[in-house]
Amino acid sequence: MIDRNPHVEKLHADYLFGEIARRKSALEQRCPDAWVISLGVGDTTAPIAPVVAQAIGEAAAAMSTPEGYRGYNEGFGLPELQQRIASRLYEGRVSPDEVYIGDGACPALGRMQLLLGSGCSIAVPDPAYPNYLFAGVVVGQTGAFDESTGHYQGVTYLKCTPENGFFPDLASTPRTDLIFFCSPNNPTGTASSREQLQQLVDFARANASILIFDAAYRDFVRDDAIPRSIYELGGAREVAIELGSFSKLAGFTGTRLGWTIVPHELTYRDGKPLYPDWEQMQISFFDGASNIIQHGGIAVLGDQGFEACRTTIDGYLSRAALIRETLTTLGYEVYGGEHAPYLWARVPGVSSWEAFDRILEQTHVVTTPGVGFGPAGEGFLRFSAFAADRDVSEAMKRLATRTV
Amino acid sequence: MIDRNPHVEKLHADYLFGEIARRKSALEQRCPDAWVISLGVGDTTAPIAPVVAQAIGEAAAAMSTPEGYRGYNEGFGLPELQQRIASRLYEGRVSPDEVYIGDGACPALGRMQLLLGSGCSIAVPDPAYPNYLFAGVVVGQTGAFDESTGHYQGVTYLKCTPENGFFPDLASTPRTDLIFFCSPNNPTGTASSREQLQQLVDFARANASILIFDAAYRDFVRDDAIPRSIYELGGAREVAIELGSFSKLAGFTGTRLGWTIVPHELTYRDGKPLYPDWEQMQISFFDGASNIIQHGGIAVLGDQGFEACRTTIDGYLSRAALIRETLTTLGYEVYGGEHAPYLWARVPGVSSWEAFDRILEQTHVVTTPGVGFGPAGEGFLRFSAFAADRDVSEAMKRLATRTV
Repeated sequence: MIDRNPHVEKLHADYLFGEIARRKSALEQRCPDAWVISLGVGDTTAPIAPVVAQAIGEAAAAMSTPEGYRGYNEGFGLPELQQRIASRLYEGRVSPDEVYIGDGACPALGRMQLLLGSGCSIAVPDPAYPNYLFAGVVVGQTGAFDESTGHYQGVTYLKCTPENGFFPDLASTPRTDLIFFCSPNNPTGTASSREQLQQLVDFARANASILIFDAAYRDFVRDDAIPRSIYELGGAREVAIELGSFSKLAGFTGTRLGWTIVPHELTYRDGKPLYPDWEQMQISFFDGASNIIQHGGIAVLGDQGFEACRTTIDGYLSRAALIRETLTTLGYEVYGGEHAPYLWARVPGVSSWEAFDRILEQTHVVTTPGVGFGPAGEGFLRFSAFAADRDVSEAMKRLATRTV
Repeated sequence: MIDRNPHVEKLHADYLFGEIARRKSALEQRCPDAWVISLGVGDTTAPIAPVVAQAIGEAAAAMSTPEGYRGYNEGFGLPELQQRIASRLYEGRVSPDEVYIGDGACPALGRMQLLLGSGCSIAVPDPAYPNYLFAGVVVGQTGAFDESTGHYQGVTYLKCTPENGFFPDLASTPRTDLIFFCSPNNPTGTASSREQLQQLVDFARANASILIFDAAYRDFVRDDAIPRSIYELGGAREVAIELGSFSKLAGFTGTRLGWTIVPHELTYRDGKPLYPDWEQMQISFFDGASNIIQHGGIAVLGDQGFEACRTTIDGYLSRAALIRETLTTLGYEVYGGEHAPYLWARVPGVSSWEAFDRILEQTHVVTTPGVGFGPAGEGFLRFSAFAADRDVSEAMKRLATRTV
């Protein structure tokens, strides 16, 4: 038979959420009556808006009629959806034909990395969403994993900690072909300022790098001074690709819908635009997002749907505020949670996993060890506000009253 | 900026359907009143079954309730869907956990090729569905495109023509790591016999190759002597991966749903199973098919849904029979169309494109030039039965009465 792909072989098994699930279920075995509350996984818990569900149902019903039936997707998304994303979310900073509809940020990232290829050098934040690296490793952009550092060889890690305001020291950052960045950030829950993001865009321009900007949490921003899109920054259209998603905006984590912005100004070294190759990738490695689900996306971006989604996000943000307040009162050093559903708490004197175990044992609350997102996350826990009101209240009550 | 990925640079632009659309619209410009009938693109035209649309609508409605809401997909598909595919379509020849639910054959093929990697040598039929090659080229499994032969360097082409019963001469076929095959076949519409497919499996076993079997048209088979799945053949579980799709089974070309079978017996050279790496690809480069659409798939595989889909396919097959009869009466040498929606007609003395133009001009019927699927398709036209009854009847009337 064939040999295993050497790039796949390099993948350092990521046991984070599997290990969390294992420890959680071990507790449930020992304490079968325990009410275990998860503030761990970054997955939405609130229902989708009824107006959105209705639009999906109507689109499905139309597909069962001769007049309403549609086959293969034409173009790169329903024009109405591309239009609404360009106008409502980008206020015209991108044109509808620069909006490529997909099935979420993770698969779009994979297709993008496959297009960019093994010859690209990459820089990723530490800590970060693990998929930036997974895609880079499998495509062949990295060396082997080094157990002693917790890093892949050949990758530039952009350390983001409280000490540097969760923003890399660009003066000491070497040039790479690709730079990944996410704001509001997963896992730290912090949001970069306009000045910081402008520095990042300028850095990418000065180095002729491509900035892959993950805007999955853009709709949690509640202060217009904080950019929701990289295209709010001058010069970004020449260097930045943006990944957007309905997952956290509309509770579509399982429903699957997202988009990628590839501006026409973004070029290869020879000055030719990149977007025609990206379009070829959509045709050759994808066949578009489900047309039925795209109608749900159109409803999300209607007045009624958008208002409903905003209300849901407000709920998550108020739970994030409660977590922030509780942890602060308890003396934790806490970051994030103001424009994001995540909070990043320092756990002094113990490792991330020790703190995870202690809180799980004493309060039956599941968190996420920061080290799971990269070595720079050691000594932190991530708390997620993606949980029901009742769960967050109870979890905070337990944290406040039991010694942890 | 970065250089263009050299593998992407190799992609020979595929103008087939774009060129067909261009010639069709040129005709419509010249003859604005013409009723142009498309028997060209392989896209379904009949509505999805109402019971399926209803299941999708109900799944969407459930997602808008606290009890029914679900976030990220767990596992690799809804268990009920995996179960129904394993039992109804595979009669237990595969287990539910070997059924990986995806968003269609094209993206699944891309992820599979990304996993298998640039080190693999490949064999593809000529003519064939172009995406087998696209994925291979972008992943880096081929050399440059050779304009003089119409082939990529470093690829083994399996010529499939009437002369060899649309089945390659395996005795003269060199070993490759991967072998792509499709039956019932796109574009020829022919179905391979049990004996032929057993030869193919035996060949893959003898050569320790992986057979990637495309079963997208399996539900058009109306004779149990013809295999619907590669796993009907002895030994296939050790060498074959099968791609399945709801596109042609249930009219889901735009709705997007499919599956991949990766048997546990399939191993790398070192004897380790391949499926754990495939599962990692599902996590790292995908996040599952839309859960709402998966409920539609469950309904397709219920008794009522399956019967409705079968009736729809019967309609396509009766139109294929009409095309076959008409072309045969007109003296064409015709293949396929008995267990597939496609017919493959020889056009003696002219090229595929000349025949395409002549039929378009004289009858306003759009076909597909066989050469668009590979050099061995030169001298043939593909007729698709994916069209309404009225359109096919009218097209055949025109073909029979106008000189072409």
